[in-house]
This record gives sequence, C-alpha cells and structure tokens, in this order.
Amino acid sequence: MKILTGTLSQLKQQVDIRRTAVAQNTDVQTIVQAIIAKVRAEGDSALRTYSNKLDHVTVNDFQVDQALIDAAPAQLPAKLLKALQLAKANITSYHQNEIERGFVDTPNPGIIRGQKITPLAAVGLYVPGGTAAYPSTILMTAIPAKLAGVKKIVMVTPPQPNGLNPVVLAAANLAGVDAIYQVGGAQAIAALAYGTESIPRVDKIMGPGNRYVAEAKKQVFGNVAIDMIAGPSEIGIIADESADPIRLAADLLSQAEHDPNARAMMVTTSEKLASAVSEQIDIQLPTLPRESIARAAIENQGFIAIVATINEAFSLMNTIAPEHLEVQLPDPITYLAQIQNAGSVFLGQNAAEPVGDYVAGPNHVLPTAGSARFFSPLGVYDFVKRTQFIQYSSEALASQADAVVTLAQAEGLDGHAEAIIKRVPAAKEV
Amino acid sequence: MKILTGTLSQLKQQVDIRRTAVAQNTDVQTIVQAIIAKVRAEGDSALRTYSNKLDHVTVNDFQVDQALIDAAPAQLPAKLLKALQLAKANITSYHQNEIERGFVDTPNPGIIRGQKITPLAAVGLYVPGGTAAYPSTILMTAIPAKLAGVKKIVMVTPPQPNGLNPVVLAAANLAGVDAIYQVGGAQAIAALAYGTESIPRVDKIMGPGNRYVAEAKKQVFGNVAIDMIAGPSEIGIIADESADPIRLAADLLSQAEHDPNARAMMVTTSEKLASAVSEQIDIQLPTLPRESIARAAIENQGFIAIVATINEAFSLMNTIAPEHLEVQLPDPITYLAQIQNAGSVFLGQNAAEPVGDYVAGPNHVLPTAGSARFFSPLGVYDFVKRTQFIQYSSEALASQADAVVTLAQAEGLDGHAEAIIKRVPAAKEV
Repeated sequence: MKILTGTLSQLKQQVDIRRTAVAQNTDVQTIVQAIIAKVRAEGDSALRTYSNKLDHVTVNDFQVDQALIDAAPAQLPAKLLKALQLAKANITSYHQNEIERGFVDTPNPGIIRGQKITPLAAVGLYVPGGTAAYPSTILMTAIPAKLAGVKKIVMVTPPQPNGLNPVVLAAANLAGVDAIYQVGGAQAIAALAYGTESIPRVDKIMGPGNRYVAEAKKQVFGNVAIDMIAGPSEIGIIADESADPIRLAADLLSQAEHDPNARAMMVTTSEKLASAVSEQIDIQLPTLPRESIARAAIENQGFIAIVATINEAFSLMNTIAPEHLEVQLPDPITYLAQIQNAGSVFLGQNAAEPVGDYVAGPNHVLPTAGSARFFSPLGVYDFVKRTQFIQYSSEALASQADAVVTLAQAEGLDGHAEAIIKRVPAAKEV
Repeated sequence: MKILTGTLSQLKQQVDIRRTAVAQNTDVQTIVQAIIAKVRAEGDSALRTYSNKLDHVTVNDFQVDQALIDAAPAQLPAKLLKALQLAKANITSYHQNEIERGFVDTPNPGIIRGQKITPLAAVGLYVPGGTAAYPSTILMTAIPAKLAGVKKIVMVTPPQPNGLNPVVLAAANLAGVDAIYQVGGAQAIAALAYGTESIPRVDKIMGPGNRYVAEAKKQVFGNVAIDMIAGPSEIGIIADESADPIRLAADLLSQAEHDPNARAMMVTTSEKLASAVSEQIDIQLPTLPRESIARAAIENQGFIAIVATINEAFSLMNTIAPEHLEVQLPDPITYLAQIQNAGSVFLGQNAAEPVGDYVAGPNHVLPTAGSARFFSPLGVYDFVKRTQFIQYSSEALASQADAVVTLAQAEGLDGHAEAIIKRVPAAKEV
C-alpha cells in the first residue's frame, strides 16, 4: 500500500479530494439530460426503452406484486431474517433520537411565533442493483422515513432478469415500504421527480447509486429534494502503535471491496504499524472473493500517511472528511472533540466499520467525497420540513410598525410599508 | 385581477407550478457553466473580467475595508439603526429555539452510540444587489450562522459604481459578518465554491439571487452545500368574507412589487370578497412607486381562486405550497393542522407578511416555486452538520457478530464479514 510522508501541509495538499475529484463529467451530464427529457416527455414508454437498452430486461409491469413482497420474509433462511430483524430494531431505536418537535415561543404579549414539523408526503428510495443486492440500504432509508411520519414510501431498483432478490423484497416489507417499482438508473430518478403513468412523483429522492444516478439526482434537485450526491465508499483510520494491523487491514479492505474507486486511507504516527498494515493488506487481499475490486481500490486510491503526532493525524483527517472514520487509539471517545469532518465514527478496536453498515443502528447512507464538511448522515430530519408561523395582536403590531415601515422604505419596498400603514396609519409619519 | 373558478381538481391543475415552472433553461445553464469554468481556471482575474462586463464596475480590491464596515452603523439615521437592532434582537431570540444538541444513547451494556453536532467551518452569504439593497437578508442569513457557531461568515454582493450602500455594511456589521467581498452573480458563487486568490472557499452558500445565481448554486452543489434554489417571491392568502379587502390587496401587492414574476395568489370562499380585493388592487396599484413591477406580476401570475369550502381552500393552497401563506380567517391558529406545505405562515389580520420580512424573527429566506413541499426556511440547522459515532465492547461485538456476518454474506461482501471474523472467530461458523 502506498505510504505517504511529508509535512502536514504537503500531506493535506495530496489528500484533499475536493480540489480535483468532483470535477464535472460533461459526458455523463449530457447522457443524463437526455434521459430525463425523454422520461418527462414519454413517461412509462421511455422507462421501457431504457430498461431494454440499459438493463437488458423487458419489464411489463413496473410495480412488484404486493403478494410477492408480503411472502418474501418467510422465504428467507431463519438466521438471515433474524439478522434483518435485529438491524431493524437497532436502526429504529437509534433513529428515534432524531425525531424533532416544533416549538412555540411567546416573546411579548400579543405575539405568538413558532415552527411546525411536517413529514414529507411521499419519498422515493433508490436501491442500487449492480454487483450486489443491498437489503441493508432499504432498512437504512425507509425506517427513518417511517419514523418521520411519511405516508407514502416508494422504492425503485433496477430490474433483474430473473426477478428481484427475495432478500430485497423482504427488507422492503420489514421496513414498511409501500410500493416497489422495477426501474433503475437515471430514468428511475427522472420518474420519481416528474412522475409517469405508473410511478408516482415524490417530494424527495434518497439513497446511493452510480454516477448516472448521482448526476440525475443533481439535475432534478430543486424540482424535488434529494439527500446527497453519493460517491465511492471511503474509510479513514487513525491508529497508533497500540492498534492491531490484522484488524486494520481487514477494515481497510472491507471498504476497498465496494468499488475500484473506493478510498481506503490510514493516518498513523507509527512507521512500524504502517509497514505491518501494508503487509497484512498483501496477505489478506488474495483471500477475498472480490479481490480484483479491492486490489484496484487499494492501488488507485489507498494510502497510509505517516504524521508526527496524533493531533496532526486528526488535522489531516479533517481535511479528508471521510465517510467512515475509525479511531483505533486508546480511550478513543476522548478524541470526539477533535473530529470536525466525518460521516460516521467508529471508536476503538471492536467498532469495526461493518458493524455500522449493518446492525449498530446509526445510518449507513453517509456523505462522501469530502462532503462530510457540510452534509450529515441520512436521518429522520431528512424526511420532514419546517413551517414557521406568527400571529400578532393589533397592539403588538402597532409597537413594531415603525420599525417595519423604516426597514421597508430603506429597501425601496414601499408596497411592504403600505401593508403596515393600512393597518397602523400612524406608522406613515415615520 | 384574474378570478379562477372550477372544481377543486381543475383548480389544482391550473395552479400547480411544479408541473411547468421549473423547466430547465439551457441558455442560462450554458452561460453559468462557462462562468464557473473560467473562475475555477483564472481566479480573481476572471472575477475582474465579469465585474467589468456584467456589473460595469472596475473592482480593485474585492474585500471591503473593515474600518468602513465598522464605521457604517454610526452613519445610519437613528431610527433605521434602531429598526435594524430590533430586527436583530427578534431574529436572534426566535432562532435560539432552533439550536440543536447531539445525543448519546446506550442501548445495551458495552455499546455507546450517538450523534455530535458540529458547526460548519465557513459559510458564504449571497446578498443581491439589483434594484434594491436588502440589509434584512444579511441579518436573516448571518444571525443563524452565528448562533450555530460558524467561525467564518463571509458575504458577497455585487459591486456598486459608488461603493456599497452604508445600510448594507451596517447590517453586516450588526450581524457579525467576518468579511465582505464586492462580487456578484454566478461568478461570486463560483468563487465561494472553489476559492480564488482573494476569496476563501466555503462549505455552504446561502441566500437568494437572480436566475444566474440560482443556476450557479445548483451547478456547484455537491462540491459545496447550498441552502435552496430561490425563485420569485410568492404570497398565498386564504380568506373568507370576514377579511378586510384593503389589507388583503395591500398584502398581495407587497409581494407583487418584488418581481414581475412574483406570484400573488388568493383563495377564498367569498365571491364578494374576490371582487372587492380585485377592485382594491386596481385602486392601490397606481399609488405604488414600483407600480410597473407590481402590475406586471399581478397580470402575469396573480389570481384569486373561488372555492366552495375552507377545507378546499387549504387543499388547493397545499398544492401551491406558497413561500408565504396568510390565513385571514377567524381563529386562524386552529387551521395550523391543515397547512401541509408553506414556508412561513401569517395568522390573522394583523400578521401582515412584511412583519415577517423584517422584524418578527422567523426567517425570510424561504422555499419558493412549490418547494415548500420539501424544503424548510433557512435556520440554525442549515449551518451545522451531524456526525454519528459508535463504540462497542468485545462482548457487545460478539453478541451481534453473527448478524453482521450473515448480512454481509447475503450482500456478497465477504470483506465486510472478514473484518468481523478477525475479531470474533466464532462468527465464521454462521
């Protein structure tokens, strides 16, 4: 694995993905623009065309039969169903902490002001197909929506030649998804944003996908809300000489196996640990069924950076802003204050990143590509909106009328001033 | 003013802006793409080129001298300074209700999980120049950022031939803005997103602007966070025969004067009120300094829809999802439950919309163009991000290891399973 050395500032230059990686890909933009335009214009017919052309599957009825979904959990091996149920319970109990309430505030006699929280009416969850089926993503997206109070949760996922995986259907059933449509890619995002004969328009589109899906979400943003632009998976590890290189290598590879562009990154104060982890990567790589993907990721994007102090390690990691951050140091929770930018943090040697992917409860839909600087994990708060309200007595209005008229006139908006003067004629004299 | 009648479903078809108004404008897209590319490539030099070409102002030093900003409040008329101070106090006290705390949760012995709230490091506020200066927008954007704990708040605003308006500088000073740069349009958004020699890169860009600004925010989204895509102002009023047509007309005109494409909309159960308001619009229009803008807005986009019941009025208004909603009915707060989609609600005859624009305290940066279906008013929550964390004891990991391995294997991610098995060898037998 590549070992980086240098001053902190040199290392920061090397690892700051935001300077380069989010460059626009105009080919993808153009293709996605055309797909969206065609779906808006032709609806289901366009979806059928793209399913044939891109997924090589002929879809007759986009909506999956409800009886098939209801029957799915019973068809799973008992231990798999039990694992999904544990995940559901833990995701639910964690996300209950995120439920928000509005407020009412009475700053002066005659004034009521506040904020009301309202669930979104309908949301769409994108579930990638691709090389693997991801029932865990269904739980991670649908459960927070349910807790928020969303009434209509629909799911889209690429059609499969032999029908959808029963574990996907079972997860949707457990999570409370209301309808599943077999459509994927940018065309699925367009359908959710604008609606077609078969597929309902929603208010927000959630979930990770490939770069066509990501670009489509970006293009429909504004007409519909989206969660975030998901990029390849990332793991950052901060470790000192006390850490176990076998575990560290396994954790780095667990993210590397996602995607040839996944980023497996470690920052350490120990040269010895760096060498040991690099050796372990070489030992463990050949044992993985997804060796070729993981090897490409390690070679393309992987690195171990050596820094002088633990403080420097956190500073460098805050520049990276990784999706997942493991802190493999003694007393790891004491470092929470030094973590500015990370999606999800795994403290200590037992909190392996895959625990968070599946059963711990926190969300696994997380900001990537440095966007943990400003984005948050998917949560219940993503499925609600806020509405402000105010009510004034005539006395309360009179007491603030001069200030409103003064500010409106300073901004050259006399019509605004007039709306107050019609109610409080004395304010005209301001 | 145009009067609409028909069944509820016919009216909904007519007023649903989302079906048409957010259509892509490819000319604007292309122009903005070129501006962003040039600013990324050439930095300050590109900004100077665009300031000359688009703003017709030659800017030497983009950053406004701090001494000028500090001196600005004392130069304002006393009553204007007092009005700004009242607005600041009320915006602060309202937005304090929005400050969020993280949580810690201990679901089982040996497991700690939680969420940490961290302010964004740096944010940029766009303040439109155009036909009017908007000090109120500076308070509305910078105060929530300060309350969130953002350390670096910078402001950009189009350069003016004779220097910036002192009231704009004073508002920035009162609100705690850390630096002001004279640059506007799409080029200002590009500068904030990517940084130039003079202008720092930020993590999030806030504030309303024209369609070039809106398109630029959309294009940089993902590399940087944005608040929302702002469109022309909107006011929706629900009123019955008890309402005062003089006030209603003044309130409709207060939004119409913003923009020839502003949307002034009323829904009522009373034909008599509809006629009276329409007459009042005709009477009040000629008295406004911004008559031509307001008249264009009323003619282009204004309407009064007549419905059979108050329930229908709310149903129609929820389809519109207006930025501002006035409820001019007796006991207005009792209708809060029926409001699903609106940015800010004004209850009763005294809560004129301009009170909310300036001094009530709730934010005036609000979702437009139907996006109140999924977007929220700007708030303290827009200036923080969340970071999840977990910590496990070895016993706690052992108790969940089988479930993680089972799910990882079901998803074809054996590297994920291996990271657990390296810690809990017994889980291999799953």
